Amino acid sequence: MERSSSRRDGTGRTYDEVQNSESDKGNKTDTGEVETIERIFESKEVPTWQNQLTVRAFVVSFVLGILFTFIVMKLNLTTGIIPSLNVSAGLLGFFFVKTWTKFLNKSGYLKQPFTRQENTVIQTCVVATSGIAFSGGFGSYLFGMSEVIAKQSNEDNVAENIKNPSLGWLIGFLFVVSFLGLFSVVPLRKIMIIDFKLIYPSGTATAHLINSFHTPQGAKLAKRQVRTLGKFFTFSFLWGLFQWFFTAGEGCGFSSFPSLGLKAYEHKFYFDFSATYVGVGMICPYLINISLLVGAIISWGLMWPLIELKKGDWYPADLGPGSLHGIQGYRVFIGIAMILGDGLYNFFKVLGHTFLGLYRQVKHKPDAQNQIPVTRNSSPQLTTLSFDDQCRTQLFLKDQISIWIAVAGYLSIATLSILTLPHIFPQLKQYHIAVIYLLAPTLAFCNAYGCGLTDWSLASTYGKLAIFVIGAWAGGENGGVLAGLAACGVMMNIVSTASDLMQDFKTGYMTLASPRSMFVSQMIGTAMGCVISPCVFWLFYNAFKNFGVPGSTYPAPYALIYRNMAILGVEGFAAFPKHCLALCYAFFALAIVINGIRDLVGKNKAKFIPIPMAMAIPFYIGGYFAIDMCVGSLILFVWSKVNKPKATAFGPAVASGLICGDGIWTLPSSILALVGVRPPICMKFLSRLVNMKVDEFLGSS
Amino acid sequence: MERSSSRRDGTGRTYDEVQNSESDKGNKTDTGEVETIERIFESKEVPTWQNQLTVRAFVVSFVLGILFTFIVMKLNLTTGIIPSLNVSAGLLGFFFVKTWTKFLNKSGYLKQPFTRQENTVIQTCVVATSGIAFSGGFGSYLFGMSEVIAKQSNEDNVAENIKNPSLGWLIGFLFVVSFLGLFSVVPLRKIMIIDFKLIYPSGTATAHLINSFHTPQGAKLAKRQVRTLGKFFTFSFLWGLFQWFFTAGEGCGFSSFPSLGLKAYEHKFYFDFSATYVGVGMICPYLINISLLVGAIISWGLMWPLIELKKGDWYPADLGPGSLHGIQGYRVFIGIAMILGDGLYNFFKVLGHTFLGLYRQVKHKPDAQNQIPVTRNSSPQLTTLSFDDQCRTQLFLKDQISIWIAVAGYLSIATLSILTLPHIFPQLKQYHIAVIYLLAPTLAFCNAYGCGLTDWSLASTYGKLAIFVIGAWAGGENGGVLAGLAACGVMMNIVSTASDLMQDFKTGYMTLASPRSMFVSQMIGTAMGCVISPCVFWLFYNAFKNFGVPGSTYPAPYALIYRNMAILGVEGFAAFPKHCLALCYAFFALAIVINGIRDLVGKNKAKFIPIPMAMAIPFYIGGYFAIDMCVGSLILFVWSKVNKPKATAFGPAVASGLICGDGIWTLPSSILALVGVRPPICMKFLSRLVNMKVDEFLGSS
Repeated sequence: MERSSSRRDGTGRTYDEVQNSESDKGNKTDTGEVETIERIFESKEVPTWQNQLTVRAFVVSFVLGILFTFIVMKLNLTTGIIPSLNVSAGLLGFFFVKTWTKFLNKSGYLKQPFTRQENTVIQTCVVATSGIAFSGGFGSYLFGMSEVIAKQSNEDNVAENIKNPSLGWLIGFLFVVSFLGLFSVVPLRKIMIIDFKLIYPSGTATAHLINSFHTPQGAKLAKRQVRTLGKFFTFSFLWGLFQWFFTAGEGCGFSSFPSLGLKAYEHKFYFDFSATYVGVGMICPYLINISLLVGAIISWGLMWPLIELKKGDWYPADLGPGSLHGIQGYRVFIGIAMILGDGLYNFFKVLGHTFLGLYRQVKHKPDAQNQIPVTRNSSPQLTTLSFDDQCRTQLFLKDQISIWIAVAGYLSIATLSILTLPHIFPQLKQYHIAVIYLLAPTLAFCNAYGCGLTDWSLASTYGKLAIFVIGAWAGGENGGVLAGLAACGVMMNIVSTASDLMQDFKTGYMTLASPRSMFVSQMIGTAMGCVISPCVFWLFYNAFKNFGVPGSTYPAPYALIYRNMAILGVEGFAAFPKHCLALCYAFFALAIVINGIRDLVGKNKAKFIPIPMAMAIPFYIGGYFAIDMCVGSLILFVWSKVNKPKATAFGPAVASGLICGDGIWTLPSSILALVGVRPPICMKFLSRLVNMKVDEFLGSS
Repeated sequence: MERSSSRRDGTGRTYDEVQNSESDKGNKTDTGEVETIERIFESKEVPTWQNQLTVRAFVVSFVLGILFTFIVMKLNLTTGIIPSLNVSAGLLGFFFVKTWTKFLNKSGYLKQPFTRQENTVIQTCVVATSGIAFSGGFGSYLFGMSEVIAKQSNEDNVAENIKNPSLGWLIGFLFVVSFLGLFSVVPLRKIMIIDFKLIYPSGTATAHLINSFHTPQGAKLAKRQVRTLGKFFTFSFLWGLFQWFFTAGEGCGFSSFPSLGLKAYEHKFYFDFSATYVGVGMICPYLINISLLVGAIISWGLMWPLIELKKGDWYPADLGPGSLHGIQGYRVFIGIAMILGDGLYNFFKVLGHTFLGLYRQVKHKPDAQNQIPVTRNSSPQLTTLSFDDQCRTQLFLKDQISIWIAVAGYLSIATLSILTLPHIFPQLKQYHIAVIYLLAPTLAFCNAYGCGLTDWSLASTYGKLAIFVIGAWAGGENGGVLAGLAACGVMMNIVSTASDLMQDFKTGYMTLASPRSMFVSQMIGTAMGCVISPCVFWLFYNAFKNFGVPGSTYPAPYALIYRNMAILGVEGFAAFPKHCLALCYAFFALAIVINGIRDLVGKNKAKFIPIPMAMAIPFYIGGYFAIDMCVGSLILFVWSKVNKPKATAFGPAVASGLICGDGIWTLPSSILALVGVRPPICMKFLSRLVNMKVDEFLGSS
């Protein structure tokens, strides 16, 4: 399950999409709810970026950071499935500080009112802190190095392929790798948020939520929107609660509902009743949803079944369904190839535009304000933007972070990291790390871009790529397994942070939080995470017996999976199933060709051509979330047909409510899991024949 | 399962209910959609009752009658669960005749346009025909007499307790018992429909459907209502279709969804996702729904669990869950006692009022028009009725059927029956039959009244009562088993027809069909049924090997159950579990006391006191349908709070759409069952522990 380790994070819209036409759904978001938001907040002063960073915010963030780290860690070590906690962070941050300020206000001691910017700062800090618990790989690559896991695998168990966790090197390792993502993502924020107008649905939803909390009195439409949001928030939360009761085991509950039939379910085509994805589908442009569906149909409907016919010929027939030597290998590697193709095309396209813009600006009139000048949407065009976008863009560009700080930070930490990492992992050579750090910003860009486009962070996918590349390079006899796992960690930390923090920047953009305060908050949050996460892990590691052993309370299932991948990786391209590499090349090229065609045919025709990045995501994961999103799309489409103004005004509120309610439910559900409360009922789906067998079995026992 | 043999038929409102206040939901139905209906139809002439009975109507009825008999017979012999087919009959009748008249109209040969009255006649005739397939007991009491079934039971297998089916006596038997229900119900129609204003939800829904088909052009609100009905019809139909896919086995699908937890499900408290009952709940007054829920809580929430604690003391611990010697006995007999108490109270109350009215009218000025003069709602009060009710009442009272025809018909057929039945069943003595015929009209009244109140026909319950009373009377050594089964048939035919045909009278009332044409249609339909049903059964009986054997294609599961009940019955009151008789007396008295209090406290306070008849129904069946209905109630309540005029205008259309869509779905689902297409998936609900076992079992096999 890819979903397990890649977190749900945000679905956005493309560059071309936004520039297309007024009828585009994406614009509705802006002209609808969003357009009026900043008028409503006009009376509220935006604090300076220094004033957005309050002590109380970081105290609350610290407390929430610990809470969320516990939750994420527990999930890491039990099922490995970690949902997005952005929304919960925003909401809980609000309640903590609001209660505190209300109390102070009553006592007459309140000096500074609680603003939405401060709320965003808390949310960002908590996400950064708890993010480390995931990207630190305590349930995957890091713990996969340990002896406990190595014993469960029967290959490459020599001493140089084993490294047991210890508090010291864990904290050190995290400190030298975790800030890199931050520095690599900071210069990209303007491109992603303002130029590309990527949506980052989770970030957008969080922003809507935070805005709604802080909406001043008297704003009528906003109040109704907040009520709508609240209604759907409640519905979605209760729906999550209701679903929970029926998930007593593997393959139980609504998320395993074969709503299109068992055959379709086997091929991952089903509606999984996820309020989150229906909401995400309502926020995403139609083209994204259709692209996802097309990708799902091409891969799971056509390619994989065809390849499976070659079972025993193209790949051994006796492999487990999760083996990368078999069908799963095609899924993962072809998907990665297509994502890389699209990501690189866009990376170089933007790079070209950037240099062209730079060249023109330097030639004509230098614009000191825009550190990364991109010709489109530069200041003259600002007037054509909506009022909201004007306000937001202005504030987002006001407090700049010099690109030189980012570059200097990246280079110095990369250097530090290159120097220190080989001391922690002697198997990982300095040139390995240097290569990763050369490639990482590109991949971080790809991930942040893809995440903004489709709400999926594919951090673990990029991590797996690193396992294979570095593992194969290092070779089995030189501790390649450990080198691969360590490389995975370095890579995952960068790309995961990149997408997470870009989500936060989007939230900050929409709540007028200063990029500087966001950056500082992310730095502090990351630093807190680098200490909190290893400590929490250490607690679990020492407190529980049989830690990491299958069948125990904390089996850490993904640790073994990652180790096995690393073992596979040291064998290099030879490990690929037959024709897989050729298919990878083909799809890499296809992604570039489709992108080229999209740029050539012009904007009007491009909206009928699917986006390769979006198409590639279901290759690996399956079509179910694409179906959820299309359902969301369909709801909005029908709603727009019936009552366009209402759909425009309340669509985003409904979508955010659905996303946030489901998001918040993860908190109590995680706590229930922590305290050992298990769901009582399993809603199981069996074919008629299996059901007859089961009935017989139950009747006889 | 009571639901199996008692068909879903109609939920209504009480006498007191209707007279209560303007705020009563029942009135909304009348002032809402209904009020405008007859204005819309004002331009359309109502044909004379002779013209309502066309040859084409009976040709279509005959064809549909055969079709529906096949469906019902198949269901009788496989699962024993038979849903209401009223709506399907109305709809298919419309399509057949409409297509025919359209064709004739185009060819220029059309003499008589297709009216809603003719449509009602078809529906009535088809229901009467296919009703025989159920009340004829081919899957229950009648086939329970056969040798095949007797062999499966190990008691009372002597020759005089066995009678194998044969076409001759089957037709004869049906002809002498089936018309009695008809004659006993005819005189009651004015009391039930006009005086008591009972709702008969299925009948009402069918009427709404038929009215909507025939709505003349240009009626704006009606058109919107029809569209609403159509929308919810489609939704409900598709929902039925969707549910079907997940019902591959026993206890599978949404109707077994333990939505309130497994513990509550065991005690029959769950929401079973039945669109029919949600719709029924929207049509029924709040008091009915609350009464049902109160009854369910008292019985399944309190009494049965308490009695189950006495297991091994009050009744043997080693009985099957369906044994009438055990807990099931308490449920059935206490429920029957309470229903009888309420039914008798109301019967005598009405009788008293009737005689008082008769006495007054004879004394002052005789009113020849009202054959059964009841003081309330007599002609002077007509002016206070809505326009719709005025029209309907006027037409309903215009074409009278003399009470003497009913009495003469009843008496002559009863005599014929008393004379001939002992020749078919020598074990059944003439005095047994005479006693049944003395009591039957009372019970027919109770059933028609209860069905109008709650949409449940408890025909099989009354049939079981007859099994016990007559079986015990005849005694085991004198072929009491067969006598009991035969008595059950006689009783069931009367009470089942009574409620079915009263539903049709309600439909006729709302579509301005003449009671005379309805009566003739019912006669013809019943006659057709008496021939068609035995023939269809004979076909099944001779065509399939191992007919009636468990595990075969046609196991006729209820035949054995009925035979076992008869075997139990011959033991008399001694067969009752401990204290059951005392409890029966108590609840019989309680029903009378509650009714007395309801009449004493006045109308304003009475609406807070539950109705015993409604309370008693869940005693046996369980609380799930009460929960469905309360959900429907809740939806309407919330809707009324949000937008009262809209809820008033469209509530009945939504409810009818829900009921009708689910109803029509039974037709294709039955056909699927007939042609042997089985649902592919089982949605199963297991507790966590059982699920673990099942997963282990599936993993190992």
